[in-house]
Amino acid sequence: MSSDRQEYQKKKQFFRDLLTIYGRKPVLEALEDPKVNVFRLHLAESNKRDGIIRQISELAEQRGVEIAWHERKALSRISRNGKQDQGVAADLQLPGYRASSEISDATLQEGMKCYIALDGVNNPQNLGMIIRSVAASGIDGLILPRKGTASLSPLVIKASAGTAFQCPLFHCETLEPELDRWRQAGAEVCCLSSHAEVSLYSALQQASRIYVLGNETEGVSAAVEKQCNMKMKIPMSNGVESLNVAVTAALLAFANRA
Amino acid sequence: MSSDRQEYQKKKQFFRDLLTIYGRKPVLEALEDPKVNVFRLHLAESNKRDGIIRQISELAEQRGVEIAWHERKALSRISRNGKQDQGVAADLQLPGYRASSEISDATLQEGMKCYIALDGVNNPQNLGMIIRSVAASGIDGLILPRKGTASLSPLVIKASAGTAFQCPLFHCETLEPELDRWRQAGAEVCCLSSHAEVSLYSALQQASRIYVLGNETEGVSAAVEKQCNMKMKIPMSNGVESLNVAVTAALLAFANRA
Repeated sequence: MSSDRQEYQKKKQFFRDLLTIYGRKPVLEALEDPKVNVFRLHLAESNKRDGIIRQISELAEQRGVEIAWHERKALSRISRNGKQDQGVAADLQLPGYRASSEISDATLQEGMKCYIALDGVNNPQNLGMIIRSVAASGIDGLILPRKGTASLSPLVIKASAGTAFQCPLFHCETLEPELDRWRQAGAEVCCLSSHAEVSLYSALQQASRIYVLGNETEGVSAAVEKQCNMKMKIPMSNGVESLNVAVTAALLAFANRA
Repeated sequence: MSSDRQEYQKKKQFFRDLLTIYGRKPVLEALEDPKVNVFRLHLAESNKRDGIIRQISELAEQRGVEIAWHERKALSRISRNGKQDQGVAADLQLPGYRASSEISDATLQEGMKCYIALDGVNNPQNLGMIIRSVAASGIDGLILPRKGTASLSPLVIKASAGTAFQCPLFHCETLEPELDRWRQAGAEVCCLSSHAEVSLYSALQQASRIYVLGNETEGVSAAVEKQCNMKMKIPMSNGVESLNVAVTAALLAFANRA
């Protein structure tokens, strides 16, 4: 690779791994948190320049964060949510936020890694709670396909109690090709089913493992289920058939602490 | 005890252990569920007698459930929530709904029981999720002091995904005297603290155990903490300090499945 090409690839990766958040309160909180690296602040020219907008821009100046002013429409394109961005967005450079392609075959083969991947979890409260539990558990990360998963909106960041900035998060477009790759690299790609014979609490992990969780109503999609080479159940009593998805994620994430 | 007095005590206990729910949808769902024993249906005379009210009263008649009509104000006193009862309440007789006094010293000393008690959990979503997880886990029950805990409202029943009717639930007025009694009977009365030295996952249960969970902002009250003879932590990574209370309850409830 020429050094120009290398430079280009590096830049591309840098921008791909920026997390863009929006909304006045989440952006203010990110700027107030010294552990969060804010790369660039985006403001709509239509914003009144007093109150919280002044506070945000002053804080950005103090921290030496570049401020870009945009027309309202251009800002909507950046936030991808013109209805709720309140004229404010920010690109964050988080060490824990990366593309799922960084989970390489070698990474999986080196040790007993453990990840949770989401398929169609679109409720922001649940996503926030899942991020919080995954961060707390210390497992290797949460995989979030852009398609079908709630975006990292102000509601999600709030429900995560701010842990979204600390949690190892891996983004991808869709889950299937990644699961396929990981399975072929020898990983245990595992979905939950009440009909499974093996219990979560008896299935010793023998290789790196990726748990896939579907949404509460539909479960995992057929295409994703096809990529799984393992099925497990969480044993349940009293005729209960399923748990809240955020509760399930916590039980999976903490299962290897037990 | 004279047989009159025995009769009186039995009756008193019977009425004490009725669970009164309210709201059109929850009452309709209870009547539709053959596993739920509806003792009496209460309707406000102000209700229009068509649509869902007709459906509810017809279903009650089919099932041979007594129907009592009341003035609007009297119904509010029965539901204890005139603003949200929608003119409908029902007394349920659930085998799993009992007074915490039934957790006797002998019960605790017979075997390694496990309960969760709540102190100030007033968010209906969280309470519903906790009921669902406790029901699914198969632990011996959830203890709900009337004071400070969300009541078993339509929101709670919905968030429990209907498991409130299957879960072993123990009601009491306040928690402190019960915890005191159980501790003196030899139980491990245990609260969580991030400063505790013992981890949930290393503290083998050596007697019956009651975990006490406080609300998310305040934790357990000082009076309740005084009744605990054990402190534990759930080990956490990435600088996360606490988990959602419903997630914590699930980890505790399933800890002995692990």
